[in-house]
Amino acid sequence: MATTISPAGVEMIAGGVTSPKGFRAAGVHCGVKAAKRDLALVAADRLSSAAGLFTTNAVKAAPVLVSQEKIQSGVAQAIVINSGNANACTGAQGLGDARDMAALVACQLGVAEEFVLVASTGVIGSPLPMAAIRAGIPRAVQALGPEGGADAANAILTTDAYPKMAAAQLEVGGVLVTIGGMAKGAGMIHPNMATTLCVLTTDAAIPGPQLREALRKAVDASFNCISVDGDTSTNDTVFCLANGMCGNAPLVDHDRAFDQFSGALAGVATALAKMVVRDGEGASRVATLIVRGARSSEEAKRVATAVMTSPLVKTALGGGEPNWGRVMAAVGRSGAGVHPERIDMWIGGVPVVRNGIAASPDLAAAAAAMRGAEVEMQLDLHLGSGTFTGWFSDLTEAYVKVNAGYLT
Amino acid sequence: MATTISPAGVEMIAGGVTSPKGFRAAGVHCGVKAAKRDLALVAADRLSSAAGLFTTNAVKAAPVLVSQEKIQSGVAQAIVINSGNANACTGAQGLGDARDMAALVACQLGVAEEFVLVASTGVIGSPLPMAAIRAGIPRAVQALGPEGGADAANAILTTDAYPKMAAAQLEVGGVLVTIGGMAKGAGMIHPNMATTLCVLTTDAAIPGPQLREALRKAVDASFNCISVDGDTSTNDTVFCLANGMCGNAPLVDHDRAFDQFSGALAGVATALAKMVVRDGEGASRVATLIVRGARSSEEAKRVATAVMTSPLVKTALGGGEPNWGRVMAAVGRSGAGVHPERIDMWIGGVPVVRNGIAASPDLAAAAAAMRGAEVEMQLDLHLGSGTFTGWFSDLTEAYVKVNAGYLT
Repeated sequence: MATTISPAGVEMIAGGVTSPKGFRAAGVHCGVKAAKRDLALVAADRLSSAAGLFTTNAVKAAPVLVSQEKIQSGVAQAIVINSGNANACTGAQGLGDARDMAALVACQLGVAEEFVLVASTGVIGSPLPMAAIRAGIPRAVQALGPEGGADAANAILTTDAYPKMAAAQLEVGGVLVTIGGMAKGAGMIHPNMATTLCVLTTDAAIPGPQLREALRKAVDASFNCISVDGDTSTNDTVFCLANGMCGNAPLVDHDRAFDQFSGALAGVATALAKMVVRDGEGASRVATLIVRGARSSEEAKRVATAVMTSPLVKTALGGGEPNWGRVMAAVGRSGAGVHPERIDMWIGGVPVVRNGIAASPDLAAAAAAMRGAEVEMQLDLHLGSGTFTGWFSDLTEAYVKVNAGYLT
Repeated sequence: MATTISPAGVEMIAGGVTSPKGFRAAGVHCGVKAAKRDLALVAADRLSSAAGLFTTNAVKAAPVLVSQEKIQSGVAQAIVINSGNANACTGAQGLGDARDMAALVACQLGVAEEFVLVASTGVIGSPLPMAAIRAGIPRAVQALGPEGGADAANAILTTDAYPKMAAAQLEVGGVLVTIGGMAKGAGMIHPNMATTLCVLTTDAAIPGPQLREALRKAVDASFNCISVDGDTSTNDTVFCLANGMCGNAPLVDHDRAFDQFSGALAGVATALAKMVVRDGEGASRVATLIVRGARSSEEAKRVATAVMTSPLVKTALGGGEPNWGRVMAAVGRSGAGVHPERIDMWIGGVPVVRNGIAASPDLAAAAAAMRGAEVEMQLDLHLGSGTFTGWFSDLTEAYVKVNAGYLT
């Protein structure tokens, strides 16, 4: 899969947040969850450029509020993340707990408190079990190592079935730059800002503002294009740390080197985002949706969002049914400008709608395409040049089972 | 349930579209479906005032386009409806078929073609099997009778588990007015215009424009407040015929009599709408959501819509879990103005959120309330005087099962 999205000159490699030079990570069990790893730490060997994107949800978790404040400086050195408890809707106590979490890590690492970012994921509304976290932080710091990326990727999971790691390398001005990343997420996944938790690391030298710009582009083309269930979390966060230790000439200008780096960052983010969709709660099948011919890219995205979040489209995807009528109904209610009689649609390359009506009474070929592990749907609205590509998972009985009992 | 929504002076009675004087109905099997009744006819004994509200979906089924045109006159005498095929995304042929359906009924009834309205519901994208419909229409006309309301209510069903009928009576200026209705719908149900198919009949005398106004109010307070799955159909239609045969003084002014009639119409529509939610595909539990304190009623509805369509809230409802964090997350992403730290929430009257955080660590009482067949959730945003009351069903494994294989 990764090969299909890597831009020219970028090689996707096996790896994660510790693949770039000068990063260590750890993932331990501290007791927020019953038994699994629940505390992750990523630390750079030196103060790094830092950028972050956060949930657009008006109900923001305490660690989001704390990290939003800290990231203003454009520099950071470490990120601490717990899973199992979102520290959201926890008021003043939650804010204090998030600050304490970062302060404890700072103290153990010997760096200033303002350079430690914090994130949480899990159940909303319960106070963080700080005794467990306080006891776990020294052990996480102890466990930090250049091979710790996989443990960290495991420690940020909630309902995920597997950890998500990706890495890429590219040459920038004759210097090898490495980018690594990890993400979590299987529910509350929707294309609206920096969905899920994700940490990206790189040994490239790039100032904070430029890093933020590259990160924004990468997230817009990856995490902002996926949907599992249409719910946007209170805790969504994407961090990127760049420690400059590979020795490239700093990426200060909007030149070819910057574009290459941005493309590689987007490549890693897209690989992670697709892993999140593939691991969508209860997902059995993943669809790529390409919308073309909208009046604008915003309208293409609006159409795609209506389709990707439609329970009827998602259950049809799960059932392997080429039910294009449900896609048409979702397009029609999207609010985007459409002329139904101009719409064309393909499933797995097979024409199913031509000028708004059935392209053929025989759906056998489309049905076969619909039953693969990956399904490609294309829509052409024939109104303009707006396009959008998104990825979404199906809605299965397993999704319902996972979520009917998640609280208790 | 009905008693809770009947306005003062209005008595809910057992009955349906043939309860008012001067209406006959029928429901027969013609062969669109394999075995069940699939062709419904409702006819007034004389030309009646008529009003209709239709889907806001940009992809409109052929019968919607045809009936939208016919209803401009404000009068009609009969309505023909088939189930099993939506006659949507069927192009010019679909338009011709919808017109033919109405013309055949007109010919058999001996009324002008323009006075017969038409609706369809079922699978999108296949041509109507007109041979079956042509053969069925004479039989439906033959079967018309004053006891045919139940057969008609059965003939408009698709994935519904049971027919939906309601009726009410009230005195208007010393004259007994009766209102009857039937509805279908269990999926593609979402608060956006006149969701589902619904036929309302009354023997009141009320001109077309006033009838339309009363219908708009009734639908805004009923069908526009329910959600099963967030999908808005291509075929949503609500018709109302008023034949004036009860002999009241025509409801031409905006006086108390008009308000009483409007209230009773809303009562019948609300009873039907709640039956639709209760019969939501796979639904095991229904929730009433009351949002108060929003900056406006529009914002209250926006908040309610986000909550009522959230898969995570709906699966929690199915699981009987008082997972208020998911409700908070949905409120936060709704786009309405909220101050998280002011939000209060109750489940079954039990406070679960106070000032944006847990009202109590003990959720036992809320959990008990959440496990009833009907659950009441209240939200107070404490920002203004906007309110909205809506009804929604849970998301269960049965919903997925119903929809994964609906096409074939």
